[in-house]
Amino acid sequence: MSRALEKVLNPRSIGIIGASEVPGKAAERRTRSLLQGGYEGEVYLVNPKRSELFGRKAYPGITEIGAQVDLTMIIVPPRFLLDAVKDSIRMGAKGIIIITAGLGESGEEGKQIEAEILRAASKTGTAIIGPNCSGMFSAAASLNMLGIPEIRKGPISVLAQSGNVIDSLTNYAKMKGLGFSKIISLGNAIGVKFHEYIEYLKDDPDTRVIMAYLEGIKQGGDLVRVARETGAKKPIIALKVGRSSAGARAAASHTGSLAGDDVIVDAAFRQAGIVRVSNVDEMFDVADVFSKAPLPRGRSVAILSEGGGDNSIAADNAERFGMEVPVLPPETQEKIKPHLLAGMPAGNPIDYGGTAEENPEVIAECVQACMEDQGVDAVYLTGFFGGFQAIIAPHVAELEQKASRKLADLVEKYKKPLFVHTSFAGQDIPALDILREKGIPVFESSEKCARCLGELMSFALRKQTIEQMESPMVPPQEYPRVKELFAAVRKQDRQNLLETESRELLQEYGLSLPAGFLARDAQQASQAFTDIGRPVALKVVSPDIVHKSDAGGIELNCSSPEEVRQAFERIESRALRVTSRERLEGALVSPMAGKGQECILGMIKDPQFGPVLMFGLGGVFVEVLKDVAFRVAPLTETDAQEMIEEIKGAPLLHGVRGEKPKDIRAVTEVLLNLSRIAVQNPEIQEIDLNPVIVHEQGLSIVDSRIILTVDKH
Amino acid sequence: MSRALEKVLNPRSIGIIGASEVPGKAAERRTRSLLQGGYEGEVYLVNPKRSELFGRKAYPGITEIGAQVDLTMIIVPPRFLLDAVKDSIRMGAKGIIIITAGLGESGEEGKQIEAEILRAASKTGTAIIGPNCSGMFSAAASLNMLGIPEIRKGPISVLAQSGNVIDSLTNYAKMKGLGFSKIISLGNAIGVKFHEYIEYLKDDPDTRVIMAYLEGIKQGGDLVRVARETGAKKPIIALKVGRSSAGARAAASHTGSLAGDDVIVDAAFRQAGIVRVSNVDEMFDVADVFSKAPLPRGRSVAILSEGGGDNSIAADNAERFGMEVPVLPPETQEKIKPHLLAGMPAGNPIDYGGTAEENPEVIAECVQACMEDQGVDAVYLTGFFGGFQAIIAPHVAELEQKASRKLADLVEKYKKPLFVHTSFAGQDIPALDILREKGIPVFESSEKCARCLGELMSFALRKQTIEQMESPMVPPQEYPRVKELFAAVRKQDRQNLLETESRELLQEYGLSLPAGFLARDAQQASQAFTDIGRPVALKVVSPDIVHKSDAGGIELNCSSPEEVRQAFERIESRALRVTSRERLEGALVSPMAGKGQECILGMIKDPQFGPVLMFGLGGVFVEVLKDVAFRVAPLTETDAQEMIEEIKGAPLLHGVRGEKPKDIRAVTEVLLNLSRIAVQNPEIQEIDLNPVIVHEQGLSIVDSRIILTVDKH
Repeated sequence: MSRALEKVLNPRSIGIIGASEVPGKAAERRTRSLLQGGYEGEVYLVNPKRSELFGRKAYPGITEIGAQVDLTMIIVPPRFLLDAVKDSIRMGAKGIIIITAGLGESGEEGKQIEAEILRAASKTGTAIIGPNCSGMFSAAASLNMLGIPEIRKGPISVLAQSGNVIDSLTNYAKMKGLGFSKIISLGNAIGVKFHEYIEYLKDDPDTRVIMAYLEGIKQGGDLVRVARETGAKKPIIALKVGRSSAGARAAASHTGSLAGDDVIVDAAFRQAGIVRVSNVDEMFDVADVFSKAPLPRGRSVAILSEGGGDNSIAADNAERFGMEVPVLPPETQEKIKPHLLAGMPAGNPIDYGGTAEENPEVIAECVQACMEDQGVDAVYLTGFFGGFQAIIAPHVAELEQKASRKLADLVEKYKKPLFVHTSFAGQDIPALDILREKGIPVFESSEKCARCLGELMSFALRKQTIEQMESPMVPPQEYPRVKELFAAVRKQDRQNLLETESRELLQEYGLSLPAGFLARDAQQASQAFTDIGRPVALKVVSPDIVHKSDAGGIELNCSSPEEVRQAFERIESRALRVTSRERLEGALVSPMAGKGQECILGMIKDPQFGPVLMFGLGGVFVEVLKDVAFRVAPLTETDAQEMIEEIKGAPLLHGVRGEKPKDIRAVTEVLLNLSRIAVQNPEIQEIDLNPVIVHEQGLSIVDSRIILTVDKH
Repeated sequence: MSRALEKVLNPRSIGIIGASEVPGKAAERRTRSLLQGGYEGEVYLVNPKRSELFGRKAYPGITEIGAQVDLTMIIVPPRFLLDAVKDSIRMGAKGIIIITAGLGESGEEGKQIEAEILRAASKTGTAIIGPNCSGMFSAAASLNMLGIPEIRKGPISVLAQSGNVIDSLTNYAKMKGLGFSKIISLGNAIGVKFHEYIEYLKDDPDTRVIMAYLEGIKQGGDLVRVARETGAKKPIIALKVGRSSAGARAAASHTGSLAGDDVIVDAAFRQAGIVRVSNVDEMFDVADVFSKAPLPRGRSVAILSEGGGDNSIAADNAERFGMEVPVLPPETQEKIKPHLLAGMPAGNPIDYGGTAEENPEVIAECVQACMEDQGVDAVYLTGFFGGFQAIIAPHVAELEQKASRKLADLVEKYKKPLFVHTSFAGQDIPALDILREKGIPVFESSEKCARCLGELMSFALRKQTIEQMESPMVPPQEYPRVKELFAAVRKQDRQNLLETESRELLQEYGLSLPAGFLARDAQQASQAFTDIGRPVALKVVSPDIVHKSDAGGIELNCSSPEEVRQAFERIESRALRVTSRERLEGALVSPMAGKGQECILGMIKDPQFGPVLMFGLGGVFVEVLKDVAFRVAPLTETDAQEMIEEIKGAPLLHGVRGEKPKDIRAVTEVLLNLSRIAVQNPEIQEIDLNPVIVHEQGLSIVDSRIILTVDKH
């Protein structure tokens, strides 16, 4: 798809089907922005009712141009759309941008047209962009088919599901003087998918940062994979709405997207190294910084100011946005102290008040000492820099400019980010212009400064992790026995596997389970207890009983043959209230698990991301505190480890209050195994291992439940 | 103190002791800003080395002026300070602003000077501002002694512990066109205290919003009390640094303030209705909005835009900042629908795209329908308003202005806040100017818009709660027995009360405790068990054993006379390893508590706020999850209830997973009782009731520990 997109974004000729010159019309604005945007290839305007448009020849149909057309844009009513698509393909179009709306988002009829378009395009591999999209911009080709005039060129590329967000973005960028490489409106994205655009932009040399606005996600699993690969080269900054129920409602009514569970979006983005933002201004702040600043190696920051108050505020901001503000080592402090007022501490934050205002070179000296320090990953300047000339005296202006040049040299030399907050950022000051020209971010808000630096650090560290990450585990082999199992369950019109079947499946994948004997009667149960040789639990087995404990189908801690016998009989008599003797398979007799930390491991199918793994501690941790971690399958080992460490209750696994640490390794293994099972068996809708008791050595999967997808046959 | 401050802020005459005209000097800048600021009273400049300053007569000493001086400002080296203060008092000064630094913050010598200043001032009730402060501004008196020129007048008053933060604030306000009523630099605040300034500003008719910048808090208990009273009249917005350890470090090196535990600052501010912000720009955003917008009655917001994407972003923002975005009732929807494109939902968010851009009156119609709706507390407009003229056609500009006027009328009529986010906020647009002139906030950032509206709602609701709140419980009587108890403990040079003593104190205050018999020997213990008649716990009692369980001093669940006897003997033999027979008082025999939710209730003394109450669930909730709530004593009943509801584990008290609800009422009572104990007994450093088992009816205080302050005699 990347090669097709290359053509689409750099076409030698373009046809606009449905071109118009009625002012304000969608077609008119897009035709105009293309004609006035400097595009150097051929442009053919098609409109059967006009012989001339914008002072050029207009063609009655695209087929009558008599030349190949690399790219067409279609703005015709839905009923004419399919023909326009077919004609485009006939004329050799590598890509078709469909502005026309009222298709899949409007109902069944539209969906059918979409299906036929895809069928037509599939034969030639033509890229379909949209429908229901708002157009495209490609700086390299001076191609502007968005209907928005005067878009500045720059290093940011945009993928957006909403047309009016593109209006917001281009308007905001205009105000801030930022520019774009590519802007692509996704619309219904029936052809080229979001992750395919990402894949293209990954290798696009003109794109330094990718911005995405999303309302819903399709094929989220592919997105996670592609985003991980992309993140190693350039950042993806995504504004995904639908965090709140009202946000999801707005998105749904807007483009018909299903927002899905936002907790999973958050987890998937983190997993994929996508930087998630919540607002347009934040997206630009972050993108601008990401396109310019060197990547820090860690989270440690030195804070400097001529103002103690600004230092305190910055230090709090730093911690809030995930940075560390370490006390600098004595050798660094010794380098700094000569530049401060006598007796001022140089621990970090550093207060050069009283010396720097009249002699701004002090700032460069202090910053240099910080940059030389191996333990410092970034420098955060706060206060009034650039305003000393106004506060002290006009001659300081020149000294401030000199300091700016030195600061820029330091960033260049040490490749460590320098972020500047100054109350004077909003004013027209040469010293600050020098910083900006050299790619040093200058903020009017200390909070924004810290937030952007924090985001840059998170991205840089995530990038390191992802680069070192092994590939996700691919299941090594087929498991025919598992498919037989599914067939048998389907045959009985069931979705729920019996516990005996779940156990078989899990064991097939190499998971070790506590012993379990299916006792058909009290006598067998009692014999199983004797064989096991320690207290046991009994659990009913029947296709009619899914929630075993609600049905009184569980007996715990039976510790004599007599107790086991009685327990079986109790289970049996309760079970027969809801099922028949033929459908009561018996009771599973298992040893009671030893002491350990109760956990829940599971897999669910998310409508956006497909199979998603879940981990949490048992009981109130999941049910009351919602302390659960998710990751999209397939998992890498790092993913599995991270999801365990991510929960707030993780210290309980590491051992608190005198407890020994639990076997986290064993939990990791089970998660990886569940990931393999999920990837290899799309038939499974849900897996629930609950409870799993994690011991100091190993773990016990006490109960398991597997549910298949609705049978489509 | 308020009357003295009234004089200080509106003096008829001012003396500057240490006036100077050396450019850039602290004294020069302050003298100049006063002389050029329009102050109409008499100004006397005092400098023994000069006969003329700024073209006026200079006096060798303040005593030689020969007229009364209402206010003096002193900028002399520390060694001359005391005399200058005494002279000022002699000349009848009602207030003295001390700019001089190098006093209490620099060491013992400075502290002594401060003490003598206070002694001198106390006789006449003269208000001491500072020392180590940066001056004062009072708009009503055109009095500017900050050394910062051209401060604009307005409704915001500022209290700040840092001089350079006042520079930041005034600079920021200048850029944003905001103005001040009073600006007071606190410095070391040895005389007038922070809460006394607040008390004055509470009744100052020119102050609509109070801004405070704080590095450390003294007399936090008084602050909570005064802030609560003030909040009923006007908001207090505080930037308190020291959230992070590095922030605290910076604050300490800056003004020597002890930042204290930030979790308690957060809790105290919430309790007091103080709006806490983290940055200067946020402080102004909030203050500006608070000084203009009507207060909403609840958290429910209607969101409107011509852009679906902007609506989605706004809805997510709304939820993130604590708002609700309810689906509007059918009658409201019916009023809105005629203004939307056919088929567009009017549920909320509302998308008037396609109609409003050409006819902005649509916006006013939709907003009116929302404002008429009882269930809507505020309206959040997002998108491109003000920019339709640029996007559509110039003639729309006038229609936008008309819509603006209508919107302003609606706010006026319905007294509900309207907040506007528009991408065009940064541009010079008449329609937006109309909104701003009418006090309707217009933001360039949708996030800021939502954050400010969320803060306004939180403040408004908090104000309602505080207005309805009963006064804190004042202890009804003295408890002489308790004071005897303390005397006995002090006599033995102890800080820790024995559990028998703790129990006596708690019971004296009416707390009901499980039965407890102090058994001196095994025989008595066994007898106690027989009397109690159910399983018991034994706990060692000895002044040498504070951590009973570490010393093996606890035996649980003893359920026969023989078990009790053996348990006593085990405790005794382990205790004798760390104490002597004379100092081993025996073991406390108590019934084992019944089932219930384990909790911890306590009191600690905070260096900033004094006695602070604590509540949390037991075990991992406190130790691993840090799920604890704090409140400053004295508590109101509402405070106690709120702190229980505030913890994340609160659902466990309400009953989850089939459990019945626990007796929250009983927990409230104990908290209120602890509050009374804390307020009435400053001798107590710490109280720890842990565990407390809360049953469906009542609770059991299973163990208690009380520690006294270090004896100062």
